[in-house]
Amino acid sequence: MGEFTVELKQERAVQTRMTLLRAAAEVFDESGYAGAGITKIVKRAGLTAGALYFHFGSKEGLAKAVMNAQREAIEPLLESRGLQHLVDITLVWSHQLGEDPVLRAGVELSYDQEIAKDAEPFEDWRELMAGYLREAKELGELRDGADPELIARFVVGACTGTQIYSRLVSGRRDLPQRVQEMWDCLVPGIATPECAARIDAGAERGRRLCEGGTAS
Amino acid sequence: MGEFTVELKQERAVQTRMTLLRAAAEVFDESGYAGAGITKIVKRAGLTAGALYFHFGSKEGLAKAVMNAQREAIEPLLESRGLQHLVDITLVWSHQLGEDPVLRAGVELSYDQEIAKDAEPFEDWRELMAGYLREAKELGELRDGADPELIARFVVGACTGTQIYSRLVSGRRDLPQRVQEMWDCLVPGIATPECAARIDAGAERGRRLCEGGTAS
Repeated sequence: MGEFTVELKQERAVQTRMTLLRAAAEVFDESGYAGAGITKIVKRAGLTAGALYFHFGSKEGLAKAVMNAQREAIEPLLESRGLQHLVDITLVWSHQLGEDPVLRAGVELSYDQEIAKDAEPFEDWRELMAGYLREAKELGELRDGADPELIARFVVGACTGTQIYSRLVSGRRDLPQRVQEMWDCLVPGIATPECAARIDAGAERGRRLCEGGTAS
Repeated sequence: MGEFTVELKQERAVQTRMTLLRAAAEVFDESGYAGAGITKIVKRAGLTAGALYFHFGSKEGLAKAVMNAQREAIEPLLESRGLQHLVDITLVWSHQLGEDPVLRAGVELSYDQEIAKDAEPFEDWRELMAGYLREAKELGELRDGADPELIARFVVGACTGTQIYSRLVSGRRDLPQRVQEMWDCLVPGIATPECAARIDAGAERGRRLCEGGTAS
């Protein structure tokens, strides 16, 4: 009975945390970080400021949690390996950005010099991507001389700018198309011809991955 | 005598405009667009608010002028053609950003959804870059199937994100290096092997171009 109560409490804590995260993401998305007041966030969540401080310590802590939620929203959907896995990360990301306010707010927050001082979200993405590029190299998918670390660093920046450009031009509607074009430009230069012929960076694949269908 | 007075007045007007542009760029660079007050800008310029409204109409008009000054700061330095010209634009840009507050403020302003509503600075850069890529195609520098419009669109986004990432990590000190790496990733996929072997995207070339030395 005591154990059951503890479990129930833990479950409720997880839910409270998620509710706050989602409310904060929505408010950051609408008003920007500076314009997002604690009062507005807790009102949106239907919770108290006390709950917010208990779970996240501060508005900055909340912003960091929103940024860190980016990867969790994408990785579990993917089963592919090597270069295709890296491509899939960007495909799912480009689709989910249109639908997931937590992902959207996380992305916007990571450009903010005040919050993302140490460029942690960028460096996390870079390290994740470099891992799949190292795997691609081991699988013989990369051209001679293609450097996983250098490519990862470039892809993180390229996705960032592609997102900003797409947001300004189309409210991100053409982002999946632009991500496909990014790979059209990049793949011939980094992958072996055999691997390049196999890679699918189509917007259609991204949609299938997001819907949970198998696309490997 | 009358003509001389008119010329003098015109010259003074050009100078006043430049002084305001530079002061505004500095204040935008330090405080962001929202935080940059008209009072602070005209005080920095040593001029009156009347002069600002006369030359730019509004703070928004001033911001647009700062954004539009980006290209003027780069183009006159370059004599190369085709793909090398496109590379040179990005090399000079990556160097000048560290030194020129007008360029820096222009770049930051163009990410702002409120000011750059129509993505005009992005579209201007894209059109400029597409022109040099079409020239590259005519010169036989591009691989079969490489699409000037698509590559231009991607390069504008990629430069944007590379700049943001570099700003967060190193205060833009490593931007010339990152731009070089961008071309290391891209050139093999878009250029013929003969052209790729000729292209120089080195940070050293960028520095020479900025110093006005011949680097063609």
